[in-house]
Amino acid sequence: MASKQSEAVRRHWAAARLAMVRPDAEQPDGESWGDLTAEPRGVDYIEVEAGGLPAMWLVPKRRVQDRVLLCLHGGGYIGGSLYTHRKMFGHLAKAAGVRALVVDYRLAPAHTHPAQVDDAADAYRWLLDQGIDPAHIAFTGDSSGGALSVTAQLRARERGLPLPAAAMPFSPWTDLEAAGKSYETNQEKDPFFYPETVRTLAATFLGEGGDPRDPPASPLYADLAGLGPIYIQAGGDESLLDDARMLDEHARKAGVDVRLDVFPGMQHTFQMAAGRAPEADDAIGRMAAWVAPRLGL
Amino acid sequence: MASKQSEAVRRHWAAARLAMVRPDAEQPDGESWGDLTAEPRGVDYIEVEAGGLPAMWLVPKRRVQDRVLLCLHGGGYIGGSLYTHRKMFGHLAKAAGVRALVVDYRLAPAHTHPAQVDDAADAYRWLLDQGIDPAHIAFTGDSSGGALSVTAQLRARERGLPLPAAAMPFSPWTDLEAAGKSYETNQEKDPFFYPETVRTLAATFLGEGGDPRDPPASPLYADLAGLGPIYIQAGGDESLLDDARMLDEHARKAGVDVRLDVFPGMQHTFQMAAGRAPEADDAIGRMAAWVAPRLGL
Repeated sequence: MASKQSEAVRRHWAAARLAMVRPDAEQPDGESWGDLTAEPRGVDYIEVEAGGLPAMWLVPKRRVQDRVLLCLHGGGYIGGSLYTHRKMFGHLAKAAGVRALVVDYRLAPAHTHPAQVDDAADAYRWLLDQGIDPAHIAFTGDSSGGALSVTAQLRARERGLPLPAAAMPFSPWTDLEAAGKSYETNQEKDPFFYPETVRTLAATFLGEGGDPRDPPASPLYADLAGLGPIYIQAGGDESLLDDARMLDEHARKAGVDVRLDVFPGMQHTFQMAAGRAPEADDAIGRMAAWVAPRLGL
Repeated sequence: MASKQSEAVRRHWAAARLAMVRPDAEQPDGESWGDLTAEPRGVDYIEVEAGGLPAMWLVPKRRVQDRVLLCLHGGGYIGGSLYTHRKMFGHLAKAAGVRALVVDYRLAPAHTHPAQVDDAADAYRWLLDQGIDPAHIAFTGDSSGGALSVTAQLRARERGLPLPAAAMPFSPWTDLEAAGKSYETNQEKDPFFYPETVRTLAATFLGEGGDPRDPPASPLYADLAGLGPIYIQAGGDESLLDDARMLDEHARKAGVDVRLDVFPGMQHTFQMAAGRAPEADDAIGRMAAWVAPRLGL
């Protein structure tokens, strides 16, 4: 059973649903999502421009300076920001003892695919330009950012850049057709992610005539051979559970060293309750422990 | 009438009241207060140790580096932190175009008066030790921090330090006996600050045998002659409105250049809704405009 603190994540998604179907309900502003997360404390926040994008360094007081997490926030490619996700990624950076860079990639509908994957690859190039060794960089992200943590690697490779050491997508949104069986099996448990909602989001992201099976838009249709190790997390109660399972299976078939942890009773991006919910702290602790040796720590 | 966004401040205080009288009600964690405030954006947060105290630099991207606001957070001397107030003071620093230092002074009941005023004076000494000109420093703070923004100056003067340029207390808690008439006149409008609540807070702050008229605990009983200009703000609906009026009157009698702005319909520390409520942004804009020339800008 979900902890009382993790229940706040379910309430967040239920409120987001209500705001969507009932325009007279209280509308969340773009930032309130971040209120789920406690302050990590001992983490500095420094805004920078990274490859032309608004970005923010998360700098734990105790860190190895030359190891970096490139953090790609979620929000269905239409929302989320440095400010919604700074604290959550700050917990991860602090737990791993490394710096993190969060990036504001361009959002739909103003900017449709492939603006997002292009921007994420630009941010990575900027990190390399700062002299960071690709073997000392891991990509991570939640939901849409989870997909980007894989697709941005492929974009970087297309451009002739070296691959990063590893990736940690959590609650990744990989199936833009919302065809997973977990939409049915978790229908009663997931208060927000209905197939029609997700398909509408996908259409907004892809733009007119966009293909939900375009490899740079969905890692499920991309050639993942040669990528570094991938650690996936997902909530057992989320509609997008099969998105994670399909990514796991697809990466495994391509010969990638991949691991999937499913957290029973947990919602989509339950890690946002970091610093409050034990399940979120457990998940972040597992990511930190997994990534450290992969960054040579 | 208060804006819809400022209504969130009233709801905050009503929830705090409910949590106090009904232990089975949802208890706010120490940080949720800060959720009232929107991100100022373009402000970096860097934790430091200042005179032995946990502290945080708020560094707007556009600022004059050598002008500083020393920020003393509210919370009845028993709560509040760098994390509850970083965003609100960040708005003020950004509007004024200067750096700000927020300080975690020690809290009651673990540490009673005069630990708070001693710590605030220590933080000021640390700023001077960094080479900041006292004529380039203003003190500011809300509620208990508002009182400290005056009493810490007196403590500094006792220690032989030069006075800062100015002070901006808002919703200052100056009357530790809760004797103001506004406790009656605003009784129906202020959901939290009942006289018995405030007297209990005062007893906790002062410790056993503490005197609510001790000058370093209450600026109403201190000799304010010689202090720099003071700009006070208060909410028209708060029980502590007379605390602000009494400070205004006391400072004026001492020959201090003092100004009081009362914001109709506003609650205690309504500036916490900065970035969301127009009244909060107006108040912060007025503080920024007032302080700039007093810091030589």
